This record gives sequence, C-alpha cells and structure tokens, in this order.
Amino acid sequence: MSAPLLVTFVAGDTGVWRIERMISVVGQDLPSATYLSMHEHPSPPKADPVIWALRATTSNTRYTNHDEAKGLVARQEGLLRPQATRAALIPIRKSEAWWCLAQDERRAIFEEQSRHIAIGMEYLPPIARRLLHCRELGEPFDFLTWFEYAPEHAEAFEQLVRRLRETREWAFVDREIDIRLSRA
Amino acid sequence: MSAPLLVTFVAGDTGVWRIERMISVVGQDLPSATYLSMHEHPSPPKADPVIWALRATTSNTRYTNHDEAKGLVARQEGLLRPQATRAALIPIRKSEAWWCLAQDERRAIFEEQSRHIAIGMEYLPPIARRLLHCRELGEPFDFLTWFEYAPEHAEAFEQLVRRLRETREWAFVDREIDIRLSRA
Repeated sequence: MSAPLLVTFVAGDTGVWRIERMISVVGQDLPSATYLSMHEHPSPPKADPVIWALRATTSNTRYTNHDEAKGLVARQEGLLRPQATRAALIPIRKSEAWWCLAQDERRAIFEEQSRHIAIGMEYLPPIARRLLHCRELGEPFDFLTWFEYAPEHAEAFEQLVRRLRETREWAFVDREIDIRLSRA
Repeated sequence: MSAPLLVTFVAGDTGVWRIERMISVVGQDLPSATYLSMHEHPSPPKADPVIWALRATTSNTRYTNHDEAKGLVARQEGLLRPQATRAALIPIRKSEAWWCLAQDERRAIFEEQSRHIAIGMEYLPPIARRLLHCRELGEPFDFLTWFEYAPEHAEAFEQLVRRLRETREWAFVDREIDIRLSRA
C-alpha cells in the first residue's frame, strides 16, 4: 500500500483493449468507442481523439477487516497476467442515501448483508481486480473497478457480477456501466 | 451530505484570516505567510502572490458509526458564526503504517483506543470543525482540518489539540502543521 496512484482510462479509436460491448446497467450511458487504454500517469495522455476519459486513484481499503484483507492478499493475483486476455471496466456511482449512512451501516450492508468481499473471494485467483476511487475527484462516478481474466473464466465472471447485482448493496447503485474488453 | 465540495486554502499577502502563528508539529514546514483565505470554488483562485495553496474535499465519514453521527449532528454548529473570530488550519499526513492497516484496525485505534470522536464531542458546540480529505488528490497532506471558535474558547481549543496529540492514533501522524488565525 503505497501512495494513491492516479489511473486514467481513455476511450478512443486506438488502445490496448478492444471494447467488445458497453451496456448501461443503470442510469446514463457513456458515448460508444472502439478501444480503451489504461494509463498510470499523473499527466493526461495525449491520445488521438479522446471520446471519453475517466480518472480515479487507488486508495486504502474502506470496509475490509484484518482477516478479510489477509485472505484476499493470500489468494489474489496481479494485473497483466499473460493468460488474462479479457477485461471489464465497471464504473459505478452510489446514491445520496448510501453516502448519508454511517460507516457501520455501510459496512453492515456491504458485507454482513451483501457478502461483497466473500463473493469476490470465491472468484480468486482467476478474476483479478483493481478498485479505484473517484468520488472526491469531481468525476461522474464514485468507483471504477477493473477486472482481468482468461477467456475460460468468462462465465464465472458473468456469475460474479450477476450475484453482486442481486445484493442489497446494489440497491444503492444509481449509475453503472458494464464495459467488456479483449486484448487487441 | 451532498457531493464532495472542493475547498482551497490560499496563503498570501491578503485574505480574510490573518495568520497569527504557524508551527511545524512534526515533519517539514510550510513557507510562512501573513494571510489565509478559504475558497469553496472548483477553479483555483486568482490571488495576489500565492505563497502556498492546499486543496481538499469534504467527504463521507470514514469511522463514525450511527450513534456517534447522531450525537455529532445534534451538538455541532456550522462555520461562519459571527462570534467565532479565531480559527485553526491543521494539515496532517499519516504514515504508510497507518494506511496499511485494515478498516477495523484503524477504527479501533481511532476511537476505541484514542477516543478521537468522543474527545472532539466534548468541545461541541464551541469548537466548530470541518474535516477535508486530500490523500487521493495528490496533495502533500492526507487531511486538512479547519476549526472556528470564539476567543473565550481559545484555551479549550489548546486542550483539545493537546489531548488528541497524546493519543495512540497520533503516533501515526508523520507530518503536522498547526496554523492559528484570527479574522482580519
């Protein structure tokens, strides 16, 4: 856990990842594009026409307790595994009602009721994940989650997102875009 | 609790608040200046020579539970009370060791061991407070806390900061500047 790292996702006509589909699950959509790139640079990338760009940073954990963190670290794998040629970018915004809750109330919905950490853990290590925060950056979303997996785990990934969307926590999601990608 | 509000503190030769003293409690200091202003604007203020500027945003609570939040809301007063002609800006950075802790470990140190919320509550409503976050903004501090109080509560404020600095939580503070101000 070092200092927060700024990550910018740029959608345009070129990029490392080809956008296979982009669905608005809840709320306003994003303009369609054909390629996406992920930049770990503080300066905005000078791309060809930028159709849209979303910025977010890594951060400390907000709900994960000590035992859960130990379990995640023991099982998870990093990004850029050669076999992980599929990816998903899921930008999410949560409602005012969510952000008005106290820390213990959000934790109870997040884990004791929705089992967000436990469900994600079932899909480790095949589904690698990077959670990024952008609520304080003046961005249109609160979180960007980036997932990478091998083609043979595509059905497991569908199951993971389906299960999370059925939780009580997801009733507080008021904007969600689901962007699926394959390495170009 | 609305969307995060960006607040910029600008130190220079003019401003609403006169800087009475500025002490480096831990770590590197900030250049000295005579006046400070607080801007609630997304665009950087066009001041006369800007000696330094610090940006941060309001955010959701990170440790406060439901009962604590109710207690705070019932007792606290807003900023800009006419009698509150004294202020303090305390920029703080916490160590890597703090940010590596899990949420339950940070909460236990913050409140069960250090009684951060309970101590602050004892000084309400005289000491009004606004907590701002900047760790994810690429700023040199993690938090900026702004306090406002009447001159007759100056000694109470000294006691508040002294008690907080004696806590276990404060062992994780690796940079802290204490800036005291009076309304110009």
